[in-house]
Amino acid sequence: MHFDPSTRYAARAKDVSDPSLKEVLTNPPGVISFAGGLPDVDHFVMDRIEEVSRIVAQSPYAWQYTATEGAVPLRKKLAELMCQIGVEVTWRNILVTHGSQHALDLLAKVFIEPGDPVLIESPGYIGAIQTMRSYQAQLVPVEMDQDGIVVEELTEERVRSAKFMYIVSSFSNPTGATLSASRRERLADLLASSNGLLIEDAAYHWLAYDGPAPAPIAAHDRRGHVIFVGSFSKMLLPGVRVGWIVAREPIIEQLSLFKQSADLATNTFGQLFVYTWLERYGLTPAVAAYRAKRDRTLAALNRFMPHDVEWNHPHGGFFIWVRLAHQCDAGKLLPAAHARGVSYVPGTAFGGPPNTLRLSFSQVPPGQIDEGIKRLAEVLRVGEASSPPATGQRGF
Amino acid sequence: MHFDPSTRYAARAKDVSDPSLKEVLTNPPGVISFAGGLPDVDHFVMDRIEEVSRIVAQSPYAWQYTATEGAVPLRKKLAELMCQIGVEVTWRNILVTHGSQHALDLLAKVFIEPGDPVLIESPGYIGAIQTMRSYQAQLVPVEMDQDGIVVEELTEERVRSAKFMYIVSSFSNPTGATLSASRRERLADLLASSNGLLIEDAAYHWLAYDGPAPAPIAAHDRRGHVIFVGSFSKMLLPGVRVGWIVAREPIIEQLSLFKQSADLATNTFGQLFVYTWLERYGLTPAVAAYRAKRDRTLAALNRFMPHDVEWNHPHGGFFIWVRLAHQCDAGKLLPAAHARGVSYVPGTAFGGPPNTLRLSFSQVPPGQIDEGIKRLAEVLRVGEASSPPATGQRGF
Repeated sequence: MHFDPSTRYAARAKDVSDPSLKEVLTNPPGVISFAGGLPDVDHFVMDRIEEVSRIVAQSPYAWQYTATEGAVPLRKKLAELMCQIGVEVTWRNILVTHGSQHALDLLAKVFIEPGDPVLIESPGYIGAIQTMRSYQAQLVPVEMDQDGIVVEELTEERVRSAKFMYIVSSFSNPTGATLSASRRERLADLLASSNGLLIEDAAYHWLAYDGPAPAPIAAHDRRGHVIFVGSFSKMLLPGVRVGWIVAREPIIEQLSLFKQSADLATNTFGQLFVYTWLERYGLTPAVAAYRAKRDRTLAALNRFMPHDVEWNHPHGGFFIWVRLAHQCDAGKLLPAAHARGVSYVPGTAFGGPPNTLRLSFSQVPPGQIDEGIKRLAEVLRVGEASSPPATGQRGF
Repeated sequence: MHFDPSTRYAARAKDVSDPSLKEVLTNPPGVISFAGGLPDVDHFVMDRIEEVSRIVAQSPYAWQYTATEGAVPLRKKLAELMCQIGVEVTWRNILVTHGSQHALDLLAKVFIEPGDPVLIESPGYIGAIQTMRSYQAQLVPVEMDQDGIVVEELTEERVRSAKFMYIVSSFSNPTGATLSASRRERLADLLASSNGLLIEDAAYHWLAYDGPAPAPIAAHDRRGHVIFVGSFSKMLLPGVRVGWIVAREPIIEQLSLFKQSADLATNTFGQLFVYTWLERYGLTPAVAAYRAKRDRTLAALNRFMPHDVEWNHPHGGFFIWVRLAHQCDAGKLLPAAHARGVSYVPGTAFGGPPNTLRLSFSQVPPGQIDEGIKRLAEVLRVGEASSPPATGQRGF
């Protein structure tokens, strides 16, 4: 008889992740995929990478442990970066993490007790949703429109009673939406008056195609109501796994205690790689390459899509949010799409309505974008014709 | 008025870490430190490191995300490594983690519910203790002697009723003790008969100075009662932050779900660095250099220590466990030791009795070992003379 480990799992081990998502992200061969949200290796600047890597590798200390809070030179660099976008902090307000997903995990661990209400933009980032769920938060969706969460509909009571609120403020995953500058100010005021707490995920902040993103909400915060989370995965390289948290010192200290027991320290080589890159080349994400892909995808959507399909125009990031005809179900159409050689993620994976889907243009080779969107349009046309009229409400 | 974040912390945020430990590990300048348990950068083989690093950096995929479970080539390599020490598994039984501390955190997250009893060797690894505490486990100490935990004293009932047991099987931190081969077999039998679960931490397994360590307990386990945790921090380089878990597939799948929400994936560069190193150079920890330091430390102890001080002879790893005269308190003597220019960690930091301390010889320059132990002996002599006779029990 084999030992059955499942008899010993903690209660909260259930229902963390949606296994169907993995299936969605694994595409059959020959498929043009708008599904995965990864950066494109073709945009990695290999000569610079090899140069920086060579410099860092020479130091024995790049291979030793670092402090739990992160390597001090990198923390100082990140504090400078934050000051440049209006968030006035020192290196003591910075905690370096093993990517921003680990930042979210630490924040959830420190703040969430089972059953705690957490306000979350909906549709929202699946990785954050999974993390909050793994700590048994009660997720309370906040409505969105083209300008991000509808701050006007949030009451002081709702913000006060939640443990915290979580949003991706610029070029959100999955919707591509950016919270408008006026809403940012209004939200900062609301957090102050309701004594609320916000986790502002800025993973795409510097990946801006039509001028810089509005100043982060953290820049409007003078009383410690906003915790800012950044990442180098999209704007530099995911393989280094370096992200960071910006918060008041007592929060950094608290997070650091948990980080010590969670991973001792973030990988030193990755931290010094990022530091050295920033020293030599500054923050230089592949904006031009991704902007060209966005423009080409938008042009193809304009050219091929049926007239009752709608989408937004993201000003940065990797994602376009598409709303199909009322009666269409993007999840049900996915097998047909795969059969036709194109892929996407249904909006329901992120808490969106059935007639929505996420297109990621980040990894599609430029020469395949038109063909991919054309195939998708064909699938949607067939889908529209064969779907019975639906009665549900249509969301963002 | 500033926002006070502490009003929002989860209950379990309290009492994770012992802040006094940080103080203990931070030494005044001029001190010969036997305190920290880090590898010595002087033993890093820089020409090989730079070569392997250069090879890995050339591949764009070293900088992209990998699968949550780890890069498949590394998983296959680790499965081979496990088979070599008698643990017959395939790559599907391997989960690569961001160091072994992160492995312990994932295991705690998956298995521990607040209040769960966990059997832990005592004195035990402080990092594991902190992690288990952060998930509110109820830690139940298991006695140790020179041959590791006293398996003879464990009952089926004790093993069955605990969520799991945790031990560092070879060259333990902090005691340097190694569980004897006969106890390993006996423990495997006990786990099987009581349907228990063991987490076997093998962070120092390959750092053996007097012939190889006994086969892991996992090698005696045929029914999935042992989860093995490995690390490259001590036997290769800590800065890569690569560790691994070996377990039955259902456990790996469960851990992987949590890992996805915890950090998406382990840093790719570090994983491919380890893989490439193993391909080119195999597992070649700096055994000769550390063995020489151990021998020199033991010789100095023999030469300088008062006759009523005892210590063990570790066959690997970084640590020697020292037992002082009955009435001495290693914690209270630490200021005097710092004043005399020598440092250590008091045994109480690991759950040991007051008259014990941990000496780590890993980072002390060889030329300073004699002087350091001489200084320590002086401090202990003065301490003995001035301490009142104690009445407490003396443990390992």
